[in-house]
This record gives sequence, structure tokens and C-alpha cells, in this order.
Amino acid sequence: MCRAATRFCAMRGWAPVHEMPLPNGRRADILALRPDGCFVVVEVKSCARDFLTDAKWPEYRDYCDRLFFAVDLDFPQELLPDDAGLLVADGADAALLREAPEHKLAPARRRALLHRYAVVAAGRLAALSDPASHAELRAALRVE
Amino acid sequence: MCRAATRFCAMRGWAPVHEMPLPNGRRADILALRPDGCFVVVEVKSCARDFLTDAKWPEYRDYCDRLFFAVDLDFPQELLPDDAGLLVADGADAALLREAPEHKLAPARRRALLHRYAVVAAGRLAALSDPASHAELRAALRVE
Repeated sequence: MCRAATRFCAMRGWAPVHEMPLPNGRRADILALRPDGCFVVVEVKSCARDFLTDAKWPEYRDYCDRLFFAVDLDFPQELLPDDAGLLVADGADAALLREAPEHKLAPARRRALLHRYAVVAAGRLAALSDPASHAELRAALRVE
Repeated sequence: MCRAATRFCAMRGWAPVHEMPLPNGRRADILALRPDGCFVVVEVKSCARDFLTDAKWPEYRDYCDRLFFAVDLDFPQELLPDDAGLLVADGADAALLREAPEHKLAPARRRALLHRYAVVAAGRLAALSDPASHAELRAALRVE
């Protein structure tokens, strides 16, 4: 389902980053950067319980311009709030069942979020590109 | 040498991205994002000839706040311009021999460069994290 949501983003030219740590201590399942500079959060919910035990999902709104839930076909959609977007996974693809309303980020927060997004993506890229150097560097930084 | 320059950046908390395509068609060897939001370009020059045949290096200045050259110990340093920074690789590390003067990016260009940097890093991260999906997606986008 996460893969279908990722594909949904990528097909639209949105650049998704997974498990994105936010300044409020939460982690967004997907934070995607759109070509127009807007940020989209996609929260993947595997089952009703997964949604119902997450009382803090409204906090994601503070760090995106649009918020979507992504669920499977058999998820009870009536549980989900009307004022968030809805993606439903169908095999490798996800269909847009409801567009998400827009709640524009303030310019300063958008700038800070873009910086954070960039640093997280570049840091993970460096770690994946050269794992040995990365591990060695982490050790060096701990010692100093 | 590129690895030493990368390490130099990472030790300072700068987030380097390699082979970064710039809007003017050039590729910076390293474009690093500093915690304060400034961008640094590090151009790696393997030998005198490598520097002398690159007449267009001043164009990197237009897309960073500070420009450094990174060279080996045996590079003839007198060839390099005084008004760019200088890193000299010594084994796995690089030493800062000359600080680079600052030439601040205009706000609109900084914003656009940060967006570009973020999209490049996230795109490469996605391709490395899930090569099969990425290849399949590229094929899908070509067909449509």
C-alpha cells in the first residue's frame, strides 16, 4: 500500500520521502514535494485499528499543504475524516477517491520544512551511496 | 579527493550532493547545504590540466554562496584564483587552506536552488531505495 501511494506521488512528479521526521516529533509516512513547492503528507493506514489508535493525525496538517490518507480497498472508509484526501490502493496503483483540501503553509514554515526535507533526503542518499564512509563518519563525529 | 571533500563537508554538518545539475547546464562536483541555509560548491580538480581546460568555472559562483576548489597535495596551487576557497586533500581528510569569500545568493534563486537540490536528492534516494519500482515507473512515464 505504501508502494502504491509512492507510485501515485511519483507518477504526478511529486518527490516522496518516507518516514519523514517532523519538528513536532511525529513521522509522516510520506512527505512529498510537488513541483509547485507545495508539500503533501500521505498517511498510510493498514487497518481500522491503525487509524483509530492514532489520535494525533491532525498534527500532520501543520506540516503540509494537503493531507491524504492511503488505505486498502477493504478499509472502512466511513471512519476517515471528510476533510482529508483519500487514496485507495488497488494492486500496484492507488486511485484518488477524494481530493484533499488545501491549507497553505506559512512562508517561514514552508522554507524551514523544505530545508529539513532536503537535509533528510541528502543525508539518507549519502548513507546509501557510501555506507562505509557514512559509518566511519558517524563514529568520528561521536568521538570528537 | 572527492571523498575527502565530501568528508570535509559532512564533518561540518554540511549536506553534500554530488554531480548536482545546475540551471545553467553545468554540474557541480559537490553542492552542499549548510545548516544556516547557505550553499557551498566544491569543485574537485584532479590536475592542472583539469583546471586549465575548464574556462567556465566562474559560472558556479552564480549558484552558491561560497565556492571552493579541492585539489591534491601535488596540485600547483598558484594556478587557482585567490578569490575562491581552497581545500587540499591529505589522505581521507581535507584541510581548509583558504576560506572562500561569500557572495550571497538572491532570495528567489536560493529558494529555487533549495527546491532543485531537494528534488534531486529525493529522486536519487528513491531510485537507490527501490531500484525495481523506479525502473518500472520510468518505463510507465515514458509510455504515457
